[in-house]
Amino acid sequence: MDKKLYIPGPIYVAPDTLQAMTRPMIGHRMPEYATLHESVIGKLRQMLHTEGYVFLSTSSAFGIMEGAARNLVQKKCACFANGAFSNKWHNVIERCGLKADKISIAWGSPVTAELVEKTLASGEYDAMTMVHNETSTGVLSPLAEIAEVMKKFPEVSFIVDTVSSMSAVDIDVETLGMDCCIAGVQKAFGLPPGLAVFTASKRAIEKAKRAEGRGYYFDFEEFAKNAEKHNTPSTPCISTIYALDYQLDKFIAEGWENRYARHAEMADATRAWAKKMGFDLFAAEGARSNTLTCIKNDDKTDLAQLKKLAGERGYAIDNGYGKIKNETFRIAHMGDFTMQDMEEIFALLEELLPQVRN
Amino acid sequence: MDKKLYIPGPIYVAPDTLQAMTRPMIGHRMPEYATLHESVIGKLRQMLHTEGYVFLSTSSAFGIMEGAARNLVQKKCACFANGAFSNKWHNVIERCGLKADKISIAWGSPVTAELVEKTLASGEYDAMTMVHNETSTGVLSPLAEIAEVMKKFPEVSFIVDTVSSMSAVDIDVETLGMDCCIAGVQKAFGLPPGLAVFTASKRAIEKAKRAEGRGYYFDFEEFAKNAEKHNTPSTPCISTIYALDYQLDKFIAEGWENRYARHAEMADATRAWAKKMGFDLFAAEGARSNTLTCIKNDDKTDLAQLKKLAGERGYAIDNGYGKIKNETFRIAHMGDFTMQDMEEIFALLEELLPQVRN
Repeated sequence: MDKKLYIPGPIYVAPDTLQAMTRPMIGHRMPEYATLHESVIGKLRQMLHTEGYVFLSTSSAFGIMEGAARNLVQKKCACFANGAFSNKWHNVIERCGLKADKISIAWGSPVTAELVEKTLASGEYDAMTMVHNETSTGVLSPLAEIAEVMKKFPEVSFIVDTVSSMSAVDIDVETLGMDCCIAGVQKAFGLPPGLAVFTASKRAIEKAKRAEGRGYYFDFEEFAKNAEKHNTPSTPCISTIYALDYQLDKFIAEGWENRYARHAEMADATRAWAKKMGFDLFAAEGARSNTLTCIKNDDKTDLAQLKKLAGERGYAIDNGYGKIKNETFRIAHMGDFTMQDMEEIFALLEELLPQVRN
Repeated sequence: MDKKLYIPGPIYVAPDTLQAMTRPMIGHRMPEYATLHESVIGKLRQMLHTEGYVFLSTSSAFGIMEGAARNLVQKKCACFANGAFSNKWHNVIERCGLKADKISIAWGSPVTAELVEKTLASGEYDAMTMVHNETSTGVLSPLAEIAEVMKKFPEVSFIVDTVSSMSAVDIDVETLGMDCCIAGVQKAFGLPPGLAVFTASKRAIEKAKRAEGRGYYFDFEEFAKNAEKHNTPSTPCISTIYALDYQLDKFIAEGWENRYARHAEMADATRAWAKKMGFDLFAAEGARSNTLTCIKNDDKTDLAQLKKLAGERGYAIDNGYGKIKNETFRIAHMGDFTMQDMEEIFALLEELLPQVRN
């Protein structure tokens, strides 16, 4: 049985979006591809408020998260770690043979501007990484406040995983002064996985040119060079890019403000529903994600059983990630979902919860 | 106007194969994905005559070509270079900060067992790279003969780009003793780009564990660990994997021997047609690819104009790659193409050639 996905990625992809992938194939060195690429980049630039570099990488977001490190960590990286993915990023950077310190923050809490300032003040670092919206914990960190602090450290590359926030939350790349922000399209974009979208500042490109051993596949300079021809260094996942082009048209038709408001409304409703059902939220107040809600288990709910029962009804739900598996569960509210989809899952869970609570 | 692709990749993708991508999305940590993954790997193992590791990488083949170097080049690599892609591979390995010598061979000529033996006899190398089927020149190198020689050098990782040969030519990974062979699915597999298929020997996995700075995204050890759960280290391009599963079923229904024979027949017909039209072949006799034919320009044909006219008729053809652009042109005969498709392009070119020959 096919299941409707309420997990936080890969998320539900609408049938019309899936269908957009079936346009006839083209060669990536044909003018047809350059036209497609230019169209997509133009729309992404509109979304991200930038005329600067926006690139498409045929990889998951972690490919570019590793690539960003190979390009931009030349001294030492400060990795702010408040969840599974930000922790893993630190590990991946070390596995590249690069120097990185992990600055641990309690899961459920955001990265704060104060901590960033205090950490970078040591002068040890030439790069920092953080996850804007921790998919493991449902925590959204205050990017604007952190960006203010980052302006005091122009020598530190500001590298942000916006994997599960980009396109659902307004991100103004230029105002925030980010050197690199990275997303995978299987989250808020509502697309099949296999493609990462990322930005790079001019400063980042210049710095990347000095990075030794950065290789080719994720070389930022190569991305910049190929961008001049509206192209990519390696053969891109053209069918997924067709679907991205289609999906961006849907975003524009909805209107950016409407899109962001819809995500906020679904998030509010999910938080209110969780409380109504007697649950607490895992993320600290004021730092709660608009794309997924992480709910604390109340210790009397068998989440594995809840997931199983929901699955039998044709719904895929999550029962927590990493070290908070079964201690939490997450409900995704992003992509093409509307309040109607949220009411659908609330109704199902209200029916099933009494069966799995002791 | 949509164009039918006769370029050597991305190639024509059949409508039913495109449609196979539209199955509803699943999560890559759901059992549904493990089932899909196991199904695909089982069929690939059948094709490659191995019970060993076959992995799926969400990247173009060049991602894994770089990854293979980061995992397996720990001393110095001998890069046999007889075309644009084998030359580029050497460059990419150097850009990873690894040591590599380029052993240059005239474009149009194959890599020979003699040259491999002579080169490796120096004892300087712990890895070698070669391209089985050079897409830039239409040259197929004698893999079986080279594999015999490689058995004398068990300490040298045997890394082969089979990007445009895998699935069109029988490749017996175990008998050949390859440590790593790599393909992109937008060539002979007849799929949209965005996914690489590769093998790794047990010896390669053990060696990879000792590679410093190999990172995460292309870490062979991570692929091996995740394979135990029928999974991938990072979020895979699930829709393309759906299509791969579908396409492999088509291959099996056709029968492997029939599939290989069909490619050989199309190749023979294309070579004969080129000669009939007064052209010479670029690849040396006995080293001609079964998936694409590289034809020498006769100096009286305006290939750019030929490409333009064919484009106006709804056909995408190639006018050479890299340093032999316009000195050669290539006709692809792979994937789902049959003799009927070849006759279609021959007829078109026979009509157009008189208009572009001086």
